[in-house]
Amino acid sequence: MNAVEIKQPYLLFLADAGDPLAAKTSIGVAQWHPERCVGQLRLPGCKADALVPDMTPKEAARKGARTMIVGAVNRGGVFSPAWMEALHAALDAGLDLAAGLHQRLADIPEIAAKARKLGRSLFDVRHPTEEFPIATGRKRSGKRLLTVGTDCSIGKMYTTCALEREMHARGLKATFRATGQTGILIAGGGVSIDAVVSDFVAGCVEKMSPDNDADHWDLVEGQGSLFHASYAGVTLALIHGAQPDALVMCHELGRPHMRGLPGYRLPDIREAIDLNVLHARLTNPRAKCIAVSLNTSKMTPRAAATAMKRIEDRTGLPCVDPSRGGVGRIVDRMMKIR
Amino acid sequence: MNAVEIKQPYLLFLADAGDPLAAKTSIGVAQWHPERCVGQLRLPGCKADALVPDMTPKEAARKGARTMIVGAVNRGGVFSPAWMEALHAALDAGLDLAAGLHQRLADIPEIAAKARKLGRSLFDVRHPTEEFPIATGRKRSGKRLLTVGTDCSIGKMYTTCALEREMHARGLKATFRATGQTGILIAGGGVSIDAVVSDFVAGCVEKMSPDNDADHWDLVEGQGSLFHASYAGVTLALIHGAQPDALVMCHELGRPHMRGLPGYRLPDIREAIDLNVLHARLTNPRAKCIAVSLNTSKMTPRAAATAMKRIEDRTGLPCVDPSRGGVGRIVDRMMKIR
Repeated sequence: MNAVEIKQPYLLFLADAGDPLAAKTSIGVAQWHPERCVGQLRLPGCKADALVPDMTPKEAARKGARTMIVGAVNRGGVFSPAWMEALHAALDAGLDLAAGLHQRLADIPEIAAKARKLGRSLFDVRHPTEEFPIATGRKRSGKRLLTVGTDCSIGKMYTTCALEREMHARGLKATFRATGQTGILIAGGGVSIDAVVSDFVAGCVEKMSPDNDADHWDLVEGQGSLFHASYAGVTLALIHGAQPDALVMCHELGRPHMRGLPGYRLPDIREAIDLNVLHARLTNPRAKCIAVSLNTSKMTPRAAATAMKRIEDRTGLPCVDPSRGGVGRIVDRMMKIR
Repeated sequence: MNAVEIKQPYLLFLADAGDPLAAKTSIGVAQWHPERCVGQLRLPGCKADALVPDMTPKEAARKGARTMIVGAVNRGGVFSPAWMEALHAALDAGLDLAAGLHQRLADIPEIAAKARKLGRSLFDVRHPTEEFPIATGRKRSGKRLLTVGTDCSIGKMYTTCALEREMHARGLKATFRATGQTGILIAGGGVSIDAVVSDFVAGCVEKMSPDNDADHWDLVEGQGSLFHASYAGVTLALIHGAQPDALVMCHELGRPHMRGLPGYRLPDIREAIDLNVLHARLTNPRAKCIAVSLNTSKMTPRAAATAMKRIEDRTGLPCVDPSRGGVGRIVDRMMKIR
């Protein structure tokens, strides 16, 4: 199943997201493709905002929406009972549903039955239907950049999208390769690698980033973190399958602990870079980290500038925040890689 | 589906295995539970031997066999067309089938149809039917040992089985936790973690090795290698989920390249130990490597002794070959961990 089959435009469902990270799918779609989003639907207690008009499914349908994107996450990847009324309302209003959770829309009997009865489509973009090979480790032609991170949900997808936009603006050959549900909804294609059977994750990444022109860059969306006790295996398989020439380390200051893991501190950024590069060199001996992407969204401009300067001193690499100064300096560095 | 439902005794199907590694499931079952194996079935060209009598399915059925274990592997985990005649013959002779490949017996239409018609059972032990949680990283009570390796198929399961046998002989509390198809068929339980969706692998390992008595050891069967370009992600999730107090590094000398990956050399053993311990300390800061298990099956006793001495000098750790001198020295070291 591919996101390109999903009918546009969208109503974004942010549900009862407790923070913006929990609604990052909705927010990401609105950020990178606002033209595809007629509005958002939020439940009481929702603490996220995709910055598009609030409306009901009925209102959205009147404004032309064809699909409600279930763009919020829940721990464990299941649909919350509190969401059901909204899902039914969307189907009743004439909308299809698209979601990127581990649990399938198609596996909720009442939703599946109503969709069938009303002739609506259900898209579970997190559930790859393709078969993937075992990774071969064979070096592919073309160039690849992979975003990695000190933690989950720290700016990897955002940085990758920003790089594609900047490279296209410069007339360079680049393709965003989505590896998670939000990225897939943004890119119109890709594979949710955390839903792939573990033996095939590296092979899946090899397949989604095939041989290409020598001056073409695949911009591979990173997932998880080598330092995250729940997901590091996914990250490592992605690093090996991507065979990156360039890594960009994504980071945020001030997190009290790794996302979802109280008691687990974030790694030192230098240590994180070294370990990612070490693993990347297994499948691409020329891999190197070329920049740090710092999420400074919670900082004042002045504090952000100081923090970026400190990270540049500590790592010897350019440090940018894509949402403040753009990613031009990263692309400059990429162009020096032969 | 659990291996304990599989009816004993077995006929072991080694198929056309090109080398003993390709038949390691059959060989492992015969090695650790010879009393469960009435014989083996080998096709022309088979270069492996489980050291039990060769016989046809009919002969095996006459000797009491209830199940034919498809104990050979094929790249990519699919059934070879060359095996079909033997699978049909086993069903015709009255045997159930049990296999541990990625492809399911139940997904081969002719096999599924014949099994249904004749009332035989098909067991696909590699396909977990349970649901698994996302790993929490919470430290569990009891002690854990994990075997790791410089490569795949290098002695991790063998070493783990040998440790359980030795600990039980000493009256110590220990449980072998199987993570692969052979181990499951040997242990009568466990989960094939490489068949688990990647997001849940670490959580699956946490679940299969729950809280236990302070003096109980879970002996967790390792998989893959952090240095294997196809499978390292599985290995890392296993390390994090197992939270090992003790690691045992498994190694073999003289391999020309990583299994299945021409062009990829095996890592230096010291480097392999350091990287495994580094990752293990994320979820268990007290993790350490306590021994090296060297597969010297292709060496003379004298060459083996020299090699083991050299590894002890290089690593500062005891080096044993479970099949030559046993694993007593490893258990001695485990008993010093508090």
